[in-house]
Amino acid sequence: MPQGVPTTVPDDGLTTKQRRNRPLVIVHTGDGKGKSTAAFGLALRHWNQGWPVGVFQFVKSAKWRIGEQTAVETLADLHEREGTGGPMEWHKMGAGWSWSRKDGDETDHAADALAGWQEIKRRLAAETHRMYVLDEFTYPVNWGWIDVDDVVETLANRPGQQHVVITGRRADPKIIELADLVTEMTQVKHPFEQGQKGQRGIEW
Amino acid sequence: MPQGVPTTVPDDGLTTKQRRNRPLVIVHTGDGKGKSTAAFGLALRHWNQGWPVGVFQFVKSAKWRIGEQTAVETLADLHEREGTGGPMEWHKMGAGWSWSRKDGDETDHAADALAGWQEIKRRLAAETHRMYVLDEFTYPVNWGWIDVDDVVETLANRPGQQHVVITGRRADPKIIELADLVTEMTQVKHPFEQGQKGQRGIEW
Repeated sequence: MPQGVPTTVPDDGLTTKQRRNRPLVIVHTGDGKGKSTAAFGLALRHWNQGWPVGVFQFVKSAKWRIGEQTAVETLADLHEREGTGGPMEWHKMGAGWSWSRKDGDETDHAADALAGWQEIKRRLAAETHRMYVLDEFTYPVNWGWIDVDDVVETLANRPGQQHVVITGRRADPKIIELADLVTEMTQVKHPFEQGQKGQRGIEW
Repeated sequence: MPQGVPTTVPDDGLTTKQRRNRPLVIVHTGDGKGKSTAAFGLALRHWNQGWPVGVFQFVKSAKWRIGEQTAVETLADLHEREGTGGPMEWHKMGAGWSWSRKDGDETDHAADALAGWQEIKRRLAAETHRMYVLDEFTYPVNWGWIDVDDVVETLANRPGQQHVVITGRRADPKIIELADLVTEMTQVKHPFEQGQKGQRGIEW
């Protein structure tokens, strides 16, 4: 995409540079494909700038592993070994977040989702990352596991220069209202309609 | 995204496995963001499977370099050095494609775009890659530089197991008709509307 040119210049007292560097809340929603994939691409743009990225996958099973996770972890490892790009972390809710893995296999998805959000709040307060990908985050919010007002207040008051990307269907209107950039992915035509199943390299 | 379950099973005489492995033409269109970024994510899924990928950026200036290009080239280099993942190539039209760089700085964008498409046709015939990303390909087609009927016929008759992803606004209806999977990215809210300019890590 070519570099954008603003269509209006607001009377907010900010310089172009201040406005340019304003941290964004980005939402990828809708029923179509590409919501998560496009979010992980933004993570790679941050890696390329040398900036720290945290990816948090809500909902996904611990067994489900997509190509982007391997790509991100490979690039994160290269950062560790050779200093290329920026540091990246990839956390999956699945059978418990990596920072809070506990014994036993009692899983309480609602509690796990909330624990994930609480960790993200701690990291936002500590300015741990420059970009946060909250993948499939709309679901635990819509299911009432995570309080949407807490999300909106936390994001609205986050310190420093931290971008937050939220993906998932049916994003809450309060999150849409807060967001700076919202894209809706719409399914126009899908091979599952022709009886085709998911395949390697496309769905994972 | 969870693995999809087909909503109908067609009476086409194919087994589920044959149907699953059917190569796809994928289109990311619409005025919203994420069309190219999501396509590059599919390229990473192929890299992760160890399959060869070719990215062809039409339109983009040679000076314009996005984070994904560095990520893809870094992973391609890692494949060369250590055998990780699959081979990837990234070609930009800009000041001439890498395989056809010529002296002089006379640039004829229409001729360059057509030369890019002709190279892609040769590679499809030779089954060079398993995934082709034709980024911003809708523009040279819409400008009449590349014949849409030739595109449709070539894609419809390509041999073997080759996925093709086409990105760009206003995809030609003939391409939409041919495609197996079409996603429209719609802009719901954009910071350029609030007078904000593009920024590092987000637009590139």
